[in-house]
Amino acid sequence: MAVEIERRFLVKNEAWRGLVTPKLLYQGYLSVEKERTMRVRIVGDEAWVTIKGYISDVSRHEFEYAIPVQDALTILEQMCPFKMKKHRYCIEHQGHVFEVDEYFGDNAPLVVAEIELATEDTAFARPEWLGEEITHDGRFTNAYLSQHPYTTW
Amino acid sequence: MAVEIERRFLVKNEAWRGLVTPKLLYQGYLSVEKERTMRVRIVGDEAWVTIKGYISDVSRHEFEYAIPVQDALTILEQMCPFKMKKHRYCIEHQGHVFEVDEYFGDNAPLVVAEIELATEDTAFARPEWLGEEITHDGRFTNAYLSQHPYTTW
Repeated sequence: MAVEIERRFLVKNEAWRGLVTPKLLYQGYLSVEKERTMRVRIVGDEAWVTIKGYISDVSRHEFEYAIPVQDALTILEQMCPFKMKKHRYCIEHQGHVFEVDEYFGDNAPLVVAEIELATEDTAFARPEWLGEEITHDGRFTNAYLSQHPYTTW
Repeated sequence: MAVEIERRFLVKNEAWRGLVTPKLLYQGYLSVEKERTMRVRIVGDEAWVTIKGYISDVSRHEFEYAIPVQDALTILEQMCPFKMKKHRYCIEHQGHVFEVDEYFGDNAPLVVAEIELATEDTAFARPEWLGEEITHDGRFTNAYLSQHPYTTW
């Protein structure tokens, strides 16, 4: 069992671009309730199923298991009503890694930066491109965005 | 990827009892929509997460992955709104195995027999204790029973 502690931000300029090469994430949801989500994600030749349980806006139970990519593809294509693709840029900044997600399709041009922390009040340095915090705005969760794309807001 | 083809029956007497020793199944659901279910199940010192997708009353996509028992216990206790315990008796009869499930708690005294088949029209011999077919009665699915226990019908 693990608890994921995460804060989320908008980005306010393009200074993060070009720092690292992104990975393509293809993911979908089998369940998108606030209390629990079930995600299937493919990155390159790896795939996972992830169960998350809501504790607070910042903290979630997280259980993640590697599965065959072919299974993941079948589940995504045949069983997931809600799915999305995005580019993920993992950007290190003063000892922490920010995951910057650039959304495609109906969620473009949204860009969100996430940081995983050891505790809810762990301090971290803010890169100059980091914008407004959206941790407490449930609309910016991937589960919500997969059902209600950004361009439809 | 696998497709599970399964027919389900009530049992009409007690002649199946005593044929084999049962296993205790403890399971719960993270998602119980008709189109897709996510189940976590513990049997002894093993556990699995299972994703099923509806194809027809008889056939379902099924993806099953072993997970640590401690993870499964945490998921069941902290994240599953719907769960149940039952005894499972695996009874061989003329080349096929019937899984006879005896439910506990609010689902007692319900007993259901399932048989997995290679195709939807595979023939099989019926033991004399096999009762009415309930394959097409969605109330007898475990996902439904976990939300609407038998004694509340």
